[in-house]
This record gives sequence, C-alpha cells and structure tokens, in this order.
Amino acid sequence: MATGFDPHVAATSIEKLHDGVRERMRDELAVEEPLEIRVDGEALAVTMRTPGEDEELAAGFLAGEGLIGGPADIVEVGPTRDFAANTVDVRTKNGLRRNPRDERSFYLTSSCGVCGKGALEFVRLSAPEGAPPAAPVEPQTVLGAPSAVRSRQSAFERTGGLHATGLFEASGELLVVREDVGRHNAMDKAIGSLLLAGRFPLEGVFASLSGRASFELVQKASLASLIGVVAVGPPSTLAVDLARERGMLLCGFVRGGSLNVYAGSELLCR
Amino acid sequence: MATGFDPHVAATSIEKLHDGVRERMRDELAVEEPLEIRVDGEALAVTMRTPGEDEELAAGFLAGEGLIGGPADIVEVGPTRDFAANTVDVRTKNGLRRNPRDERSFYLTSSCGVCGKGALEFVRLSAPEGAPPAAPVEPQTVLGAPSAVRSRQSAFERTGGLHATGLFEASGELLVVREDVGRHNAMDKAIGSLLLAGRFPLEGVFASLSGRASFELVQKASLASLIGVVAVGPPSTLAVDLARERGMLLCGFVRGGSLNVYAGSELLCR
Repeated sequence: MATGFDPHVAATSIEKLHDGVRERMRDELAVEEPLEIRVDGEALAVTMRTPGEDEELAAGFLAGEGLIGGPADIVEVGPTRDFAANTVDVRTKNGLRRNPRDERSFYLTSSCGVCGKGALEFVRLSAPEGAPPAAPVEPQTVLGAPSAVRSRQSAFERTGGLHATGLFEASGELLVVREDVGRHNAMDKAIGSLLLAGRFPLEGVFASLSGRASFELVQKASLASLIGVVAVGPPSTLAVDLARERGMLLCGFVRGGSLNVYAGSELLCR
Repeated sequence: MATGFDPHVAATSIEKLHDGVRERMRDELAVEEPLEIRVDGEALAVTMRTPGEDEELAAGFLAGEGLIGGPADIVEVGPTRDFAANTVDVRTKNGLRRNPRDERSFYLTSSCGVCGKGALEFVRLSAPEGAPPAAPVEPQTVLGAPSAVRSRQSAFERTGGLHATGLFEASGELLVVREDVGRHNAMDKAIGSLLLAGRFPLEGVFASLSGRASFELVQKASLASLIGVVAVGPPSTLAVDLARERGMLLCGFVRGGSLNVYAGSELLCR
C-alpha cells in the first residue's frame, strides 16, 4: 500500500537544505482540495479536504452538526447530477433537521476560504496585483525563525495547546508573535496587529508558522503581500501550488538545522 | 510573565496517570471561546479563538479574506455598541470591498460550529437526549490507541502532513481510521464511514485523535454519542467544559505510557 496509488498523497520536486548543502529531490505531499457539500442539490458548505472519502465526509459532517439524525435520514450520497468535480451531494429522505441557511452564519469546518470559485482563481482575483518586490532571505534567518517564535510563546509553554505565527523582516528582525488555539487565528492576529499599527500590505515580511502550511494560510500570506511562509510542519499540495503561482517562498520541515524548499527557491540566498 | 495573569491560559484540575499511578493535579489549558466578528454592526462570522487580541484578529481576518485593503479602510475596531461579550465590531470607512453575504457560503476560519447561540447551549440543544450508557474503558486501551491509529496512517508516513481520527470499541477493537489535512474532516470521515455502514449513533465507541482536542471535535463526538475522546495533544478549555457537561471521557497528552484525564474519570476503569 505504501507504494501504490493513494489519492491522499501527491509527489513533487523540492530542494532540501541540510548541513549547508542544497539538493533537488522528490517529496510527497498531503493532497488538499476544496469540496463543496450539497444537500438535495443545493450547496451547503465548502471545506478544504484531502480527497478520497467524500461521501463519508459529507455524511459525518451533517451528523456532527446535528443536521441529520442517522442513516435513516439519508437516501443516497454520491456525485452530483452534473458530475461537478470536487462536489458531493447528499440526498435526504425528508430534508435536514433544521436549515442552517436560516442561521446568522454558515458553518464551515477547518479552513475554507473558497466559495464556489476555484481555490486558486479566488486568490488570483483577490490578491494585490503585481509580484511583491524581491527580498531574498538568508537560509540562517529561516532556520532560526521557529525557535525565535517558540521562545516568545508564553502560553504554549504552559499549555502545549497553542499555535503561533511570527512575522519577520527579511533581515531576520522579529516583528510580532501571536498565539491561538486556531492556526488561522494566530496568523490573522499577527497580520492584524501590524495592520492596526498602520502597516499593510506587508511587503518584505515573511511568516513563521508553528505547524503545517495549509492553503488558507498561504492565501492569507499572499493577500498580505508577504514574501512567503516558513513552517515547522509540511505544506499541502494546494499550498505549494499557490505559493508557486504567486512567486512566494514556501519552506517546510524547518527544524534541526534543515529545511525543505517547496516554492520560491530563488528567494532563499545562496 | 509566565506566572502573571494571561487571558490565553486557564487552570483546571485533572487526574494524571503514569506508571500505573493516578494522581490529582493542577493543569493549565489554552482558552478557547467563540468570537463573533461584526462589520459596521452586522454579524459576519463566528470563529472559535483564544481571547486576548480580538481587534487584531478581526482586522487580520478581513484583510486575509480580501474584504479590506489596508488600514485606510478601517475607522475603528472595538467592542460593539451593546458591549456584547465575545463580540468585536469593525467600523469601516466605506464598507467592505465585496459582500461575502452575497456569496454561496460564508467563510469561517478554524473551527466554528457555533452561530449566535452560546457554544455550550448549541450542543445542549442539538445533542441526543439522555446520557450515553456507561461503557468504561481500560487505561491500557486508551494508552494503546494512538499507536494503533498511527500504524494505520499510511499517508502520514509518506507526507507527515495528515491528521487522523480512529474509532474504537470500548473493548479496544479498532473500527476505522481516517486521515485528512483538516482534523475536523478526519473525524467527519471516520464517523461518516460508520454512519454509511448503518451504525449511528455510536454508543460504546470512543475516538482517538492524532492532535489536539478542540471544542468542535468534542462537539462532533457528543453529537455522535461517543463515550469520549482521547488525544495525543491537549484539549482547550471549552472542550473540557463540554466533555464534563456531557459526561464524556476526555484524555489528553496520551503518549509514552502516560495520559491526563480532563473529564469523565469514572469512565476509565480503576
């Protein structure tokens, strides 16, 4: 199974930096794509997910929100009548137990900045025009960023339960660290703190993340005109696609003096 | 700073199990509470967040979604006119750059199953009535659950980038493991797989999570009538509150032969 086709995994080419050596190699990424969940033909929610068990995801999502009570409420789960890609339709016996569309805000689980339009298309429309000015970063600056963030994570030390985002100048100066139970919130807070101080867009700034780099986090970085994102964990496929399209630096597995460059290798000084 | 008041952290009483010994002790949790973001007085989104920098979060959220372009679009960010708790209002100069309410689905970042009503109140209304039948679990079963899940995570081994949820009978039998870039999706898929096989609610079943236990994950477990949730990472405050209210087992830091019991200690065999 480890070598067969797996819809959860996709291969890509990266540069690995370790012991001062940079080499090109093959890597495997977790696949991330948007899924639109429809109920009786009508769109209910969009979530960023790993493809493979869309019917299960749709059924479990509805049950977990209290919108269906059990198997008896579902007639069928499957592709939509128009066979739209990344879309699943749940046909119910008697509709949902309540109509979430009547409520003040929709729910969406996990990250979900994508609605109706394609994920990359959305960012293309919303992001500032023109490539951000080149501001190359020293590898040592990237390698040191996670520990600089960690040393400012007072609440993580006490609970082990908070994500963090740090924002740095390309020169390595740490501007701000924010923590939150939600990784997206940590990044929103860090960017928001500079914005409220009058600085936005954030050209010449990069973000260091305590966890993984999902599409939505790279999207936020792109909309803020950051140089890029460096993360202790790995990125997803869609995060890499977006960073490459936007000409951003994207590093993952930044730990123990080593890192992987998934996009924007030219933004990392040689 | 490490000992002063910090809105990100709250103390609680737990039982720690290590080397076969169970002892009561004090622990600190990451605070998680819902925040309603309003724009010019109108509700836009609800996100589960750690309190402390709500103005920054609101401003960064709007910028990251492309709804504002920078500081010049904001007149003021602060409490609402009615000083509603856990609510922040962004007053704009000329409204948002586009109206997300016109789009097919709202965005919400991170977890966000709470809309308008209080978080616990929502679950109280939606969860199945009556406490689930007692189905105590052996500590060894809980201690062994994360490694049993991990050994079935084929895509994680290859990418390092996927969360997992495993569902187990109280006896320790592993029923299903699902992986996803989104932790909520992994749980939705696992629960959905049993639901589509005709089994729901899932009385007598517990979930083992590869990461942290947020409110929304315990909410999904509660709505599926699970015995409880055991996690490799820590829970948040609101996850603990919900598990205690619902009489569920909630264990965290399940690793290296040790675990913390945050709720439902009576469901763990002595």
